Amino acid sequence: MTEARELRSTIGADGTLRVAIEPVTLDAPGPDEVVVRVEAAPINPSDLALLLGAADVATLKADGDALTGTVPEQRMRAMQARVGQALPVGNEGAGTVIAAGDNVAGLLGKQVGMIGGAMFATHRKLPARDCIPLPAGASAADGASMFVNPLTSLAFVETLRSEGHKAMVHTAAASNLGQMLNRICIADGIPLVNIVRSEAQAEILREIGAKYIIDSTAPDFREALTRAIDETGATLAFDAIGGGTMANTILHAMETVEARKLAAYNRYGSSTHKQVYIYGMLDTGPTTLDRGYGFAWSVGGFLLTPFLMKAGMETVMRLRARVAAELKTTFASHYSQTISLADVLKPEIAAEYARKATGAKYLIDPSR
Amino acid sequence: MTEARELRSTIGADGTLRVAIEPVTLDAPGPDEVVVRVEAAPINPSDLALLLGAADVATLKADGDALTGTVPEQRMRAMQARVGQALPVGNEGAGTVIAAGDNVAGLLGKQVGMIGGAMFATHRKLPARDCIPLPAGASAADGASMFVNPLTSLAFVETLRSEGHKAMVHTAAASNLGQMLNRICIADGIPLVNIVRSEAQAEILREIGAKYIIDSTAPDFREALTRAIDETGATLAFDAIGGGTMANTILHAMETVEARKLAAYNRYGSSTHKQVYIYGMLDTGPTTLDRGYGFAWSVGGFLLTPFLMKAGMETVMRLRARVAAELKTTFASHYSQTISLADVLKPEIAAEYARKATGAKYLIDPSR
Repeated sequence: MTEARELRSTIGADGTLRVAIEPVTLDAPGPDEVVVRVEAAPINPSDLALLLGAADVATLKADGDALTGTVPEQRMRAMQARVGQALPVGNEGAGTVIAAGDNVAGLLGKQVGMIGGAMFATHRKLPARDCIPLPAGASAADGASMFVNPLTSLAFVETLRSEGHKAMVHTAAASNLGQMLNRICIADGIPLVNIVRSEAQAEILREIGAKYIIDSTAPDFREALTRAIDETGATLAFDAIGGGTMANTILHAMETVEARKLAAYNRYGSSTHKQVYIYGMLDTGPTTLDRGYGFAWSVGGFLLTPFLMKAGMETVMRLRARVAAELKTTFASHYSQTISLADVLKPEIAAEYARKATGAKYLIDPSR
Repeated sequence: MTEARELRSTIGADGTLRVAIEPVTLDAPGPDEVVVRVEAAPINPSDLALLLGAADVATLKADGDALTGTVPEQRMRAMQARVGQALPVGNEGAGTVIAAGDNVAGLLGKQVGMIGGAMFATHRKLPARDCIPLPAGASAADGASMFVNPLTSLAFVETLRSEGHKAMVHTAAASNLGQMLNRICIADGIPLVNIVRSEAQAEILREIGAKYIIDSTAPDFREALTRAIDETGATLAFDAIGGGTMANTILHAMETVEARKLAAYNRYGSSTHKQVYIYGMLDTGPTTLDRGYGFAWSVGGFLLTPFLMKAGMETVMRLRARVAAELKTTFASHYSQTISLADVLKPEIAAEYARKATGAKYLIDPSR
């Protein structure tokens, strides 16, 4: 048995958020399980949505050692399914195996990357199949983000190939995930149109060697986007923003390019299928689609786990192997701050990591 | 050579709509072609979008024999691709073959249903493969609508099967297409949730034998929709409305049902894929999606021609054969008015057919 501490997030029926560290006791691992001392876990945007729920960041404050906040009443509807539950947080992490079941005893003492939730904890018991041993020379920090962003960016490329697209558009393109996607696409020869929001973000991608970088705050954004789509033939986009009109703008640009190729006017628009997948929600507002791009379009949600389930074990193993092989190059993550588990509960630190600013990425080291 | 008259719709750069009847000369048919005297052609919503474009119906007036109107300036952007072109109109129709090429001489004198545009005309030359001989006892009026609505409703059922859904939701469900869809689904044992906007529409479907009829104007609309989706297991919807929040409401109802089945809270929502296809635009306003239904969802355009091209010739032939066999039962259309080609240009008649009211369906008989 292992005495551990684990971060839990609870939202009450009255809209009160409470995040605290709770003691938990881990049983000895089963024959195919391991117990890992967590040494690094990133705070991804997807973790934040669970950690803080729909709480207003401006209301965060300390209550003893706990972090508290308030969910605005109009956003409580979306929280109903989690009310009253003390939810563990943290999609992925890395650390050292301190106990291992009989069938996986070879992992004892090894450092591994892990996926499976509840990683914002001092220790985690989980099936060995959800771990990847770190390659030689890689630290826990190197292996902390070897699942979500690497597999998601690889999933984008798999989707492009399986759906028969030639090129793709990506928004919030200077993110850690976006940087990985650029390195993959450059290596694999896939044209990638990067949409960023500032010159500083553009510079990050320029250094990686990105060819198409479009600033959505520039006055000629739509024209530049249309030109890049014309040059690359992109008919697929992955959008991290979600709310607002970005998906709509991308579909218009794609259809403008396709409509030019039509021999005669067709009131239904081009028959070339235009696909936007929304995989994030940097903007939690509604998505608005004016449908001024014919009928050959689709906008849908995209999530890694269902993609991997559908792709099958062989594909998953191939993608994981690439991540391990290129962990310190293609899939390198950069963190601006490393904090302790207790730091996660400090309001002034929470206000910072909740901003999700490009280049301000937080790593938790629960062993501190 | 055949001297014919054909309806043409033109929108000028200044936003002026002009619909007029023009003389055209049809050459003798090629070896695989026929010339048909058009005796019946329906005015479908999809025809109206080409006939009147984005013109404001309130501005329609007569100019000699022509019909004129004005497109509001803010809607001209969507009309750019057709400016200055005199476009023929009319997706489908039926009539008598008056000339036939050598390879298809057997069709001479036969009545046929036809697809291919430019049907609002006294005569139409087209490939014989775009014609279906009418079954014994069927009139031109019976065969006028044997492509668009019958094949679209059958395409919905094909899509349900190929994508693995158990049941479907349909909006504007008392339309001619919706009535056909009910007859197909009853015959094939597919649960169908019909969304209508009035008690009169509900009554139309009740007479056909529809089981699930939900009135979107009722105070308990969302609850009734959720219940019907729960009972049927519908995870697919076809939406004729397009604009507004109907697609969003359907996705919420589907996710409510799926979320109840989850063993534990999942902030990404259920992993059951929820699909809405928009195939019409009764509401031309923007589609709003609040994305409060996780990530396993998709909203996309649906159009018959690309569906048929993807489905392949074997499927198309199977569907066509069913339409011909059940033309006067499953696929029977009802028209409230039969008008001449010249009547189409009369402003008071145009104001009526442009309303797209349920039960007010117009048939053109160009031989009058």
